[in-house]
Amino acid sequence: MRVDQAVRSLRATRTYAPTPIDDERVGRWVDAARWCGSSKNSQPWRFVAVRDRESLRRLSGMGDFARHLSTCQLALVLVAAPGPYPFSRAFDLGRVAQSLMLLAHEDGVGSCVAVLEPRANLIAAGGLVRAPEGWSAELAIGFGHPVGENASSGPSPRGRLPTAELLFWETFPARHDALR
Amino acid sequence: MRVDQAVRSLRATRTYAPTPIDDERVGRWVDAARWCGSSKNSQPWRFVAVRDRESLRRLSGMGDFARHLSTCQLALVLVAAPGPYPFSRAFDLGRVAQSLMLLAHEDGVGSCVAVLEPRANLIAAGGLVRAPEGWSAELAIGFGHPVGENASSGPSPRGRLPTAELLFWETFPARHDALR
Repeated sequence: MRVDQAVRSLRATRTYAPTPIDDERVGRWVDAARWCGSSKNSQPWRFVAVRDRESLRRLSGMGDFARHLSTCQLALVLVAAPGPYPFSRAFDLGRVAQSLMLLAHEDGVGSCVAVLEPRANLIAAGGLVRAPEGWSAELAIGFGHPVGENASSGPSPRGRLPTAELLFWETFPARHDALR
Repeated sequence: MRVDQAVRSLRATRTYAPTPIDDERVGRWVDAARWCGSSKNSQPWRFVAVRDRESLRRLSGMGDFARHLSTCQLALVLVAAPGPYPFSRAFDLGRVAQSLMLLAHEDGVGSCVAVLEPRANLIAAGGLVRAPEGWSAELAIGFGHPVGENASSGPSPRGRLPTAELLFWETFPARHDALR
């Protein structure tokens, strides 16, 4: 799948077929995604692949939008390294997560992010995957082959802002506040 | 370019050929990247394309690793919407930035992120692009056609951790602290 096609067609997938995702495939995604850039090449990420049903059920209760984790075939818990730069760390996790989801999409596998929150859940998730002291289990991505018209089944409004309301030249237009 | 190939081969590009990047191409990148998922579909991003040499020179002084912005052909300043969830916002910016850089890479255009910091610089950058009150110019991505062995010219150590040190199954291994 071409990058342009993958980027345009990736949607959150929250309903999954019972088709398993094998270890080799997950390994390939991480092996590609690990080339993602990060602040000072810190690679502030580890990935814990969770298939255990009881662990998935527990993770699915650890965020307001985590319910799909209970039915996914596999979740990757993204565990962030300790460090002083919260913006860069979250930004870098977003970069590597997008790579992982695009790679899965190319393989016909859907995904959906669940941010683990509030802080008590993040700590509980860290305990579940036995994250070392100081590391934090910030989010989990559920993966599975999509079922039906799945992309439209999310809790959020669909659609996206048009490019004309997102891309400006040199400066924001004076009328920006009116656009919102 | 296949997703897998693009994800594996994308590297930070900090030295740029004088080949211009036309408006239509930038528009296509944003038109594809805008389909990126975000927390509650908030799409907490705007993109300001900067080509003005004096603006680029000023941006290049607004972060410790922003120097390449002075010589890029075009910078996209990513401006974040106001909002109460700093983790999700930074994570979502990372997702959309990764899409943009992969799209550019597919077109043969290199890129490199510059986080704008500290806070005074972020405010100065917001002023430069006339970001509305409350919005913040968190980072800029420099774009340009790569020159030579460019990927190796960065200030950070090269290479990446092997998959075996990044991907675990069900839980972290007990030996993880020893690996670091």
